[in-house]
Amino acid sequence: MAKSKSTDSFKRYRIHGKFTLSDFDPESTPFAVGDEADQRAKLDALASELDELQDLLHSNGARKVLLVLQGMDTSGKDGTVRWVFGRTSPLGVRVASFKAPTEEEKARDFLWRCHAVVPRTGELMVWNRSHYEDVLVPVVNKWIDKDETAARYEHISQFERLLSDTGTVLIKCMLHISADEQKKRLQARIDDPAKHWKFSLGDLEVRKQWAQYQKAYEKALAATSTKFAPWYVIPANDKLHRNLMIAQLLVGTLKAMKMKPPKPNAEFVGLVVQ
Amino acid sequence: MAKSKSTDSFKRYRIHGKFTLSDFDPESTPFAVGDEADQRAKLDALASELDELQDLLHSNGARKVLLVLQGMDTSGKDGTVRWVFGRTSPLGVRVASFKAPTEEEKARDFLWRCHAVVPRTGELMVWNRSHYEDVLVPVVNKWIDKDETAARYEHISQFERLLSDTGTVLIKCMLHISADEQKKRLQARIDDPAKHWKFSLGDLEVRKQWAQYQKAYEKALAATSTKFAPWYVIPANDKLHRNLMIAQLLVGTLKAMKMKPPKPNAEFVGLVVQ
Repeated sequence: MAKSKSTDSFKRYRIHGKFTLSDFDPESTPFAVGDEADQRAKLDALASELDELQDLLHSNGARKVLLVLQGMDTSGKDGTVRWVFGRTSPLGVRVASFKAPTEEEKARDFLWRCHAVVPRTGELMVWNRSHYEDVLVPVVNKWIDKDETAARYEHISQFERLLSDTGTVLIKCMLHISADEQKKRLQARIDDPAKHWKFSLGDLEVRKQWAQYQKAYEKALAATSTKFAPWYVIPANDKLHRNLMIAQLLVGTLKAMKMKPPKPNAEFVGLVVQ
Repeated sequence: MAKSKSTDSFKRYRIHGKFTLSDFDPESTPFAVGDEADQRAKLDALASELDELQDLLHSNGARKVLLVLQGMDTSGKDGTVRWVFGRTSPLGVRVASFKAPTEEEKARDFLWRCHAVVPRTGELMVWNRSHYEDVLVPVVNKWIDKDETAARYEHISQFERLLSDTGTVLIKCMLHISADEQKKRLQARIDDPAKHWKFSLGDLEVRKQWAQYQKAYEKALAATSTKFAPWYVIPANDKLHRNLMIAQLLVGTLKAMKMKPPKPNAEFVGLVVQ
C-alpha cells in the first residue's frame, strides 16, 4: 500500500493570511511520483485507506469531518468527489451541493442552509460549493460592500469555530485551475453535444469576471483560513494529481485525528445467541 | 461486460398479495452462475453499469429512483449499499437511514420524516429501513391494533402512489435471512470485540420476536406491493449473491426506464470560448 505523506507536506499549499493565487502554479504536480499508472495505483490505495479511516470515524462515533470544495466552473469539484471517494460506501460519505440560493434560502441568513446540512457524529461530509459562494458571487457583482463582506468573513469564521469546537474537523480546498485550462474544458463541453447539459451561456458571463473572482477568492481565503478551518490551494490543471493530492490531504488529516476503535463491551463477552 | 437479466427473471421474487416467507429459501442462490470469482466479476460489471445508468438518470434529470431496503438485524442492508454502489459516485447516490423515531418525529405523522428525504429529480436514493418500520415494530409490540395497521398500509400506498405519479420509480427489497443465519451473524459480532459497537442487548430481545416479525413482514409486504411500488423478497443468507441480485434488479429497472441522454443545444453549436 502507498504510504501517505503527513499533512506537513501540505504546508506550502496552506493559506496563512494575505497571498496571491499566482504564487501557485495550477499546472504543477508536486506530489507526482512515477508514471500515470503509478499515480492511479497510488490514488486507488489512498481511496481504500480513506475507506478504512471512514469506517473508523463511523465506529468511533465521536467526531465529524467536513471537506469544503470550492473552485471556478470546470475546476473539477464533481470529479474530485467521484474519484477520491471511489472506494468509500455511500453510507459513509454524504455530499451537499449548493446552487444559487432559492427564495426560501434568500429569506434567511446566508449560513442557514449550510448549518442545516452539517455532518453528524461519525460522518464524513463533502460540501460541493459552500457558504463561500456568498463571499464570492455578491462581491464580484458588487451586491455587497466592503463592510458587509468583512462582516460575512467574520460570521463564517465564528460558524466554523462552532463546528470545530463541537467536534468537526474542517478541511477547505480551492481547486486552482488556470484561465487557459478553463477555456479548454468549457470548449470541450461545447464541442461534445453529449456534454451540452453541463454547460450554460451564463458560464461564459462568469468567465468574463475571471480576474475579479480570483481576487475575491484571494481575499476570502486569506480572511478565513484559520487553525481550526484551514484553506488549501490545490493545483488542479492535472485531474489525476488533483485527486491524489486531496486524497492524501484527507488521509493525513484523518490519521492525525488518532481515532481509536470503540472499546469492546465486557458485558458481551461469553454471551451465546439463542 | 456481464449481460444483465431483465426484471422478468425477478417475477418469482415479486410479491402479489398474500404469501408466506417460507415460500422463499433464504439459502438459495438462483442467479448464481460460475464460481465465486465469476460472481465477483459479474457484480463489479453490474456496479459499473449502474454507475453509467445513474449518470444517465442525473443528466436526463426528469426521473427519480428510490430503493427501499428492509430486513431483520444483520440481514445485510449496510453491506448491500456498500457493494451494489461500489462503483457509483457519492454525488449520485444518497442514503437515508431511519432509526427509532425521535421526539420531533413522533410528534408528526409517521410519513413526515420520510417525505422530508424523498429523492429529487435525477437522484438515486436508498432508504436504509423506511416507513415500513412503522408497520413492523408497533405491530409486533401491539402498540397499534388491526384497524390502525390497515390504515397505515393504505396511507403508505397512497404516499407511494404520489411519489410514483410525480416521476419516482420505487423498488422495495426485503433482505430475507434465516433465523439460523442471524444467530451466526449476531454470535460473530459478540465473539469479535472489534464488532461489539455493532451489537446491543436489545438485538436479542428483537430476535425473540422473530416469528412475529416474519408474520408482520408478510402482512405488510402483501398489503403494499403494488404495480407502482413492488416488493421483492431477496434470499440473503449468501451475501455476494444478495448483492448480485439487487444490483441486477436495479440495473434492469433503470434500463426499463429507457431514459435518453439530454438533447444537444443547437444554440451552443460552433460557440468559441474566449
